[in-house]
Amino acid sequence: MPRRGRPGEFELIARYFAPLAKGFSGARGLKSDNAFLAPDPRYDLVVKTDTVVAGVHFLAGEKPEIVAAKALRVCLSDLAAGGAVPFSYQLALSLGANWTERWIAGFARGLAADQRRYGLALSGGDTTSTPGPTTISITAFGHVARNRGLGRDGAKAGDELWVTGTIGDAALGLLAARGKIKNTFLERRYRLPQPRTLLGPRLVGIAHATADVSDGLLADAGHIADASHLAVHIEREGVPLSAAARGVVEARAPLWANVLGGGDDYELVMAIPSRNRAALQEAAKAVGLKITQIGRFARGAGVHLRVAGREVRTPRRGYVHF
Amino acid sequence: MPRRGRPGEFELIARYFAPLAKGFSGARGLKSDNAFLAPDPRYDLVVKTDTVVAGVHFLAGEKPEIVAAKALRVCLSDLAAGGAVPFSYQLALSLGANWTERWIAGFARGLAADQRRYGLALSGGDTTSTPGPTTISITAFGHVARNRGLGRDGAKAGDELWVTGTIGDAALGLLAARGKIKNTFLERRYRLPQPRTLLGPRLVGIAHATADVSDGLLADAGHIADASHLAVHIEREGVPLSAAARGVVEARAPLWANVLGGGDDYELVMAIPSRNRAALQEAAKAVGLKITQIGRFARGAGVHLRVAGREVRTPRRGYVHF
Repeated sequence: MPRRGRPGEFELIARYFAPLAKGFSGARGLKSDNAFLAPDPRYDLVVKTDTVVAGVHFLAGEKPEIVAAKALRVCLSDLAAGGAVPFSYQLALSLGANWTERWIAGFARGLAADQRRYGLALSGGDTTSTPGPTTISITAFGHVARNRGLGRDGAKAGDELWVTGTIGDAALGLLAARGKIKNTFLERRYRLPQPRTLLGPRLVGIAHATADVSDGLLADAGHIADASHLAVHIEREGVPLSAAARGVVEARAPLWANVLGGGDDYELVMAIPSRNRAALQEAAKAVGLKITQIGRFARGAGVHLRVAGREVRTPRRGYVHF
Repeated sequence: MPRRGRPGEFELIARYFAPLAKGFSGARGLKSDNAFLAPDPRYDLVVKTDTVVAGVHFLAGEKPEIVAAKALRVCLSDLAAGGAVPFSYQLALSLGANWTERWIAGFARGLAADQRRYGLALSGGDTTSTPGPTTISITAFGHVARNRGLGRDGAKAGDELWVTGTIGDAALGLLAARGKIKNTFLERRYRLPQPRTLLGPRLVGIAHATADVSDGLLADAGHIADASHLAVHIEREGVPLSAAARGVVEARAPLWANVLGGGDDYELVMAIPSRNRAALQEAAKAVGLKITQIGRFARGAGVHLRVAGREVRTPRRGYVHF
């Protein structure tokens, strides 16, 4: 039964979620049980599902606007890695026992802001209650030209390994969020990913293979290597760090393990044939994004990390989901 | 960290979920971060998301095969109400702390059996852990002819209200599952829905509006009335009951409230213009499904229930999600 003073499911939908579906005719104002997506023969529909759980994937006391943005952006990051332009999503929201209307209002504001930022509309979903922590599963939809979607497989021996932005900020930011180090820039990078949605679609025809850095740089570069039946060689000196992260690892070298093995950066790792290097640089420049070559794919298997010219054992595994 | 002896995420995917994606090329063997669905210009893509939570939507000790079937079928029931033929789904599985590989194996067996039954393939998803109860969100995909998808709106004054199968078995079956009454037929009807996937697509061009009975007969017939800006009039005598349900309400008349107000029947309620009655009967006969007219739509608003010729106050609300 609804708690006294809290709206029921239909009221919540009408008040907070239906406005997010406005203008997207296939959502039918969220008054239908189903969403209807019209086919566009020019494109494949690209689909990605991700779940975030309070206390696991975001801090239990996190602002609802940030929770909404994070839940959405982890999906958008995967769509970007697939070369897709996002356009809609389904929202499965399971509310923990202590939810408030204020929290929902903030959550919906966060979704609305990111809908404007990324050009999205809500197409449907399900709102329910749970005796456990608040849990959000989003299934996001994007478009990519027919049969041109990018994936982890397809890298060739000799391809260069490139990354966007800077690596390790989120893993160090998690330490900051937990009070173990002090740095607001890093903390913000952990709390609020910036998916590379503008670059992703421009990689179609340039990259052989792509992934986003969600499990950790070594793990995600390794996923491309595995799926492409290759080895990947990475020079630690080449890995781009923010000034904040550079300061942290210079003071505490063991935190390199967090930088290379931690997840949640939501940068892109890309296998680029040398002949496409200029095209990649042009694409990155067009969207104002820094890119860095950090290694190379070669025959063989596994992730090979070199530090000061010597190969070292790698903390390959990355983020372990359970 | 993985508990000793339990497989990690990638092992689970390879062992239990990748086989469910076999033969569906857009799933890319679940080795890509994204799924790719090719457009078919003849069809709209119909999308439905539903979440089930252990202890809320299914009994915590339920067999994993049944949990899998229920999670999938509640979505298929909505697709059927939309007139769609299902073909694929995304699975967001959040595993409670005490999950076992044996449970996952059973869950995957349940999905595999229903994939064969309904002609589906897994296209992708996300597996994660939760400190709360096991939670499953499914986003299911179906096809319906362009711009022909059915919804709750569109009923016209004078349309007949029809239902499939029998009503109330699931609500009484929940009482049975909780040991409050004793009847294995009713309990099975609660535990394992039979979505009307064969009839649904045949209703395109016959029904003006449809819904599945998930919130309760009165609530779901009321949703059609509301969305169509009409009243709906229902004769309780006309509501089709199973022999088991008939026996229960004859012995305990107050349980009529459960029959008419309880949810989870996953039958279809349909607004049918009189001129299409014969076509409806033919469609139902073709798929071996019993259908019954139980009322009529008219100008006005609300749900009007008549018992022995007298209008009674209706327990309109139906299942309250929280």
